[in-house]
Amino acid sequence: MLEYIWYVNVEVTGYKGRAYSLLKERGVVLGAEVLVRVNGGEYRGIIMPRYELADDEHIVIKLRNGYNIGLHIDNIIDIIGMEGARDITSTHTGLKRQDDSKEKPRIALISTGGTIASRIDYRTGGVRAALSADELYTMVPELNDIASIDTYPLMQEYSENITHRHWSMIAEDVKEKIEQGYDGVVVAHGTDTMHYTSAALSFALQNLPVPVVLVGSQRSSDRPSSDASLNLLGSVLFASYADAAGVFVSMHAESSDDRIALHIGTKVRKNHTSSRDAFESIDTTPIAYVDVDSKSIDMRVRVPRRDKSRRVECRSRFDDKTALLKFYPNFDPAIIEYLVSNGYRGLVIEGTGLGHVGSYCFDALRRAIDSGMLVYMTSQCIWGRLRMSVYSTGRDLLNIGVVPLNMLSEVAYVKLSWALANFADEARSIMLKDTAMEFK
Amino acid sequence: MLEYIWYVNVEVTGYKGRAYSLLKERGVVLGAEVLVRVNGGEYRGIIMPRYELADDEHIVIKLRNGYNIGLHIDNIIDIIGMEGARDITSTHTGLKRQDDSKEKPRIALISTGGTIASRIDYRTGGVRAALSADELYTMVPELNDIASIDTYPLMQEYSENITHRHWSMIAEDVKEKIEQGYDGVVVAHGTDTMHYTSAALSFALQNLPVPVVLVGSQRSSDRPSSDASLNLLGSVLFASYADAAGVFVSMHAESSDDRIALHIGTKVRKNHTSSRDAFESIDTTPIAYVDVDSKSIDMRVRVPRRDKSRRVECRSRFDDKTALLKFYPNFDPAIIEYLVSNGYRGLVIEGTGLGHVGSYCFDALRRAIDSGMLVYMTSQCIWGRLRMSVYSTGRDLLNIGVVPLNMLSEVAYVKLSWALANFADEARSIMLKDTAMEFK
Repeated sequence: MLEYIWYVNVEVTGYKGRAYSLLKERGVVLGAEVLVRVNGGEYRGIIMPRYELADDEHIVIKLRNGYNIGLHIDNIIDIIGMEGARDITSTHTGLKRQDDSKEKPRIALISTGGTIASRIDYRTGGVRAALSADELYTMVPELNDIASIDTYPLMQEYSENITHRHWSMIAEDVKEKIEQGYDGVVVAHGTDTMHYTSAALSFALQNLPVPVVLVGSQRSSDRPSSDASLNLLGSVLFASYADAAGVFVSMHAESSDDRIALHIGTKVRKNHTSSRDAFESIDTTPIAYVDVDSKSIDMRVRVPRRDKSRRVECRSRFDDKTALLKFYPNFDPAIIEYLVSNGYRGLVIEGTGLGHVGSYCFDALRRAIDSGMLVYMTSQCIWGRLRMSVYSTGRDLLNIGVVPLNMLSEVAYVKLSWALANFADEARSIMLKDTAMEFK
Repeated sequence: MLEYIWYVNVEVTGYKGRAYSLLKERGVVLGAEVLVRVNGGEYRGIIMPRYELADDEHIVIKLRNGYNIGLHIDNIIDIIGMEGARDITSTHTGLKRQDDSKEKPRIALISTGGTIASRIDYRTGGVRAALSADELYTMVPELNDIASIDTYPLMQEYSENITHRHWSMIAEDVKEKIEQGYDGVVVAHGTDTMHYTSAALSFALQNLPVPVVLVGSQRSSDRPSSDASLNLLGSVLFASYADAAGVFVSMHAESSDDRIALHIGTKVRKNHTSSRDAFESIDTTPIAYVDVDSKSIDMRVRVPRRDKSRRVECRSRFDDKTALLKFYPNFDPAIIEYLVSNGYRGLVIEGTGLGHVGSYCFDALRRAIDSGMLVYMTSQCIWGRLRMSVYSTGRDLLNIGVVPLNMLSEVAYVKLSWALANFADEARSIMLKDTAMEFK
């Protein structure tokens, strides 16, 4: 039976409502060592006290590595008391951070450029990379407490200059680092097209054993208002400790300096030109929030679990003859004809509403499809699902052979260029198969 | 001195906090007839009681026509007691709705097609227009209480089929109705491209004396979940009674059936494929909310006031050689070259972040501008302002001659096609001039 160990005058200090009931029901007291089974993972650690004003829906446990994680009670399947709970009294001081770097997770930080990697050199006036290992630790010394980080400067590109070729290079590099045994990979990237690259890596890197986390900053790292430090800390904390595998984007959840949100790599979009919380999960919630101050990770959505025995598969080619066209009133269908006559093999049309374009585009689309081009429909509304069977325009488009894709336009474009480059005749079926949580 | 008239045991029932203080300070009591001067208008009416739980920031007055309007105290410049306040006791019953249609505002309702105008004909199975005057009143009998409505079926187009030609037709028709003396014009329109048309009318129709309100519905009017009735009621209430002139979009403010939001015609976007509250004001708030149940209008933003002495100016042409291109990684600059070689005169590029495209597009852009094409930059982020002087990519683009436009991409496209068609050499300066509240 688990025993009360740590706080003397309380059973489960700070817990109330639903969280309190759950702990009482399982006979779990503060300081007990437990195994918590949740949707999408399990965590072994010690039940921690909560703040007076905390919500009643999370249980916080301190992991063996010394960091806290918040678990939503709706996600908890079971709480099991562990043998050896009594030992905790004697290892109480061991709950503090350990400085033995051999026990810290090993993280590879690949820098590709962008604001997060830029720093004004006050000597020359030019902008240069700040992400050598030494400079990184100088910039954010707290990183040293979290993980053992190796830095790899891969390229120095503003993200608007990133193309298919760069996606391939980044994917190959991430694969290499994973095969070297890192516990997680962080990719520092400019924010302008970070959501395109996160989609590209999501498709290119399948069967991932560990988290791959893209991180950027909206304000350069030598400005006082920079979000670089917190974003970096959040990404490294998540890459190091979350029981998750896959490609994610780590950025401010709010414009304040409180929380970092972790977004699925195929369901995120840059929705603001300048705010720190510019990145939003679309038609879903972030999979997790990281509280950097308390070093706690609050998992919200089930994702594949971390499993270092998994072998990453990498398909890193992207087809250059793929286009994305946004439809608008009076759109000139001759642009579609132009793509056909220039050997384009794939087209994503960002249509209106539930998935429409003007009937004056039907002939051009019919000819494109007859020529063998794969043509898909997304919606410029951004939020919401397509439904092309509701109105006659949608039904006409379906009859012509335009295929609705319930995913972000940007993601549909990336997936089509990836499918065409890596799957030949199978591309058509791959496009409709869930390969990286991309479907809404 | 104003007197207490209506409620016997209260001074200003239901008012509290700031609103209460303001009324006390001006010596105004419940039932007093007042002239309220607000930013953007003035209202004559009777101070009404408020519900127990109402906020403390609005004062509600009943207008002479019997409808209530909520005025935010931050917008109130002055409250002046009117002579004749004493008369109110004797005209108390006159506060009720009057059925004398001669006193009701005259509204022209122009239908162009789309879901709001569609009704399944259960005899033939086809979709047909429902917006003859009789059918409209049958569908939404409450309209009869609000205004005297004449209906004008102009076209029957799904909005994805609306082109420049249709914009011109709608603009000309609205102008005609205004010149016939209507107190407001409501345009029923499919929602897919309603925000493009609202921008087109905003530019085409200047110096408007009355409100022009576009309204659509996300679910067809013969379905129980339809938003058509409430949207129509909101649009007609606003067109009839708001002290506002200009082009607005009237749609559900929330997915529930509570409030209608009125958006500026150049600052609104359809951001969801299917929800009732799909339309959102971007980087600003709706200018007003209409509570259809209580028939009250809550003005939030200063807009030009209603003034029937104003003469509407109509410039209804749109240039067909204008394009909108969304940039994405690996974008093919040959598409820009194609537009140049096909006589395009204007191009809006929906770039990334603060206003960027890859440097691999620079040569094509330089040639486009050298050929005389006007090239503008917007951001696919949707929210936030452009700042092209922050990074070297933006500065390079400015040097090439690409001009940032702090407005929605859709609005920038509409404005450019309008400026090129109506202003010849002046188009360049018109593009940078605020003509319809289009700048963020």
